[in-house]
Amino acid sequence: MHPAPNSGLAERVLAGDNRAIARAMSLVEDETAEGAALIGQIYARTGHAYLVGITGAPGAGKSTLVDRLTAEIRQSGQTIGIIAVDPTSPFTGGAILGDRVRMGAHFQDAGVFIRSMATRGHLGGLARATSDLALILDAAGKDLVMVETVGVGQDEVDIVRTADISVVVLVPGAGDDVQAIKAGIMEIADIYVVNKADREGADRMVQSIAANLSLQTFAPADWRPPILKTEATTGAGIGELWAAVGRFREHTKDRRMARQRARQEVRLRDLLSHQFMDYVEHTLPPGEFQRTIEAVAQRRLDPYAAAADLLTKVIGSPRAAGTH
Amino acid sequence: MHPAPNSGLAERVLAGDNRAIARAMSLVEDETAEGAALIGQIYARTGHAYLVGITGAPGAGKSTLVDRLTAEIRQSGQTIGIIAVDPTSPFTGGAILGDRVRMGAHFQDAGVFIRSMATRGHLGGLARATSDLALILDAAGKDLVMVETVGVGQDEVDIVRTADISVVVLVPGAGDDVQAIKAGIMEIADIYVVNKADREGADRMVQSIAANLSLQTFAPADWRPPILKTEATTGAGIGELWAAVGRFREHTKDRRMARQRARQEVRLRDLLSHQFMDYVEHTLPPGEFQRTIEAVAQRRLDPYAAAADLLTKVIGSPRAAGTH
Repeated sequence: MHPAPNSGLAERVLAGDNRAIARAMSLVEDETAEGAALIGQIYARTGHAYLVGITGAPGAGKSTLVDRLTAEIRQSGQTIGIIAVDPTSPFTGGAILGDRVRMGAHFQDAGVFIRSMATRGHLGGLARATSDLALILDAAGKDLVMVETVGVGQDEVDIVRTADISVVVLVPGAGDDVQAIKAGIMEIADIYVVNKADREGADRMVQSIAANLSLQTFAPADWRPPILKTEATTGAGIGELWAAVGRFREHTKDRRMARQRARQEVRLRDLLSHQFMDYVEHTLPPGEFQRTIEAVAQRRLDPYAAAADLLTKVIGSPRAAGTH
Repeated sequence: MHPAPNSGLAERVLAGDNRAIARAMSLVEDETAEGAALIGQIYARTGHAYLVGITGAPGAGKSTLVDRLTAEIRQSGQTIGIIAVDPTSPFTGGAILGDRVRMGAHFQDAGVFIRSMATRGHLGGLARATSDLALILDAAGKDLVMVETVGVGQDEVDIVRTADISVVVLVPGAGDDVQAIKAGIMEIADIYVVNKADREGADRMVQSIAANLSLQTFAPADWRPPILKTEATTGAGIGELWAAVGRFREHTKDRRMARQRARQEVRLRDLLSHQFMDYVEHTLPPGEFQRTIEAVAQRRLDPYAAAADLLTKVIGSPRAAGTH
């Protein structure tokens, strides 16, 4: 299906070679056929790593929290891969700069691999690339993969929602408590962290999360998300956070497969629709797509009818018309 | 092509009937066939409204800014539709509550229509629904449609990027300047607004945006994004903001069609892949999709190969299929 890649690369990824990991990640991020083939080669060796999603608004202190948590986890000897989903402008180059700065703390530690990723240019690309990066780190033998996202967008929420555990980081501040609780991430949290807990309003924020939680119904056997206070800059509360991750992991070990299935479903739908769009571009007569866009832009054709027309042209079935 | 809808609804939307607008929006948000058919009926009557995208991090004061701007614009007699894309958790019900609160200021004004929208459950749904809501307001005769988003996620950025004008709202605050500039929205701004400009750090923030802008190259005829200071709570700077929108509109009037084409392309790709996924669900044998997910979750099949297999099953051999 895919061109034969450098098969040595997959072997080196599986052996945990950091340069090979970085190379594999670039192939996947650039959406190359080699990247897809590589995932195929390493996929059977994945499933070991525990996937931790960490999300929160910009400025919540997620990076510092992840760094502290990494130091904490490394004491237990586990190896860690970190993917920082950083919606950075292409022209600021912030992602690369950020990597260098952040690598500082763990640079000498071969047990930690950090990769920042900017948003991709099109819908779904971010979630797709993040999944593949996590698979590479998993195949490379990392015990734990942490994915850190700015948890406001749909893509980012999808990434975290399907991780093995979702940690939502909030921060007290002028009016931000309401905003954060409205940020669409309340229903995905397995653990709440109120970071910068030395700030005024931290206890009020804990109470407002608790009040929000009290609106939900939990069966006695359900996991009830704890609300933890941390100060990432001093390290206060980080040990408790790691302990809570462990408790959740133990509590849900029988249900991990269900979550993986949910993750695979999101992924499969996304890949399928992506491959279909590739197919469309190779199948439609040259200029057909642009002519259709032009007709829609000039109001000669409405967008739903235009999409149905194109679908019929590509797959040749009138049944595809209409949304059902 | 679509089931015959209540054709009276389209007429009432075109007549600017607020209850009909609200009903049409619900049909579209729920992704019904009636909603798609309605867009088809009204589409030829769209293209009049000027689409203003306003984005910024949570807590930047976008809602207050939009309210003030609305009051300013109403003085010129123009009618306004507002779509607040509010990534609110389904269980907090914040979007509806927010509508009621916000409608207060303009409740007596038939020239203003406000709709809040929570994030949808799947990739792309948010952008899709927002486009349709804007079309409905456009067809209903609004002169201006403002779309307000939390500008961190990919979907939200896509929404604003393809509007006729993109306004990025930033706010001075502890470390937030760097975060905001890193928030992936720098390259989409036609106008920068530093809101809450009475706060400490406002001038520093203006300078840091200006420094960032100075890294970009502008041809002499290019629009150079202005950086404006506002205090939405007092209304300071709102008149200047509205004037800047007018200058941009004048400056780019010859290029508006290109932007509309970009908007239609994003939309058409999204609709096409959405309709394809519907087609997949109606075409695959029952249980086939779930069996494939199971195989992937159990590592018997890698995700790329799984997607390619499903694509082949649905459309026949990708290589052999003709163009019609």
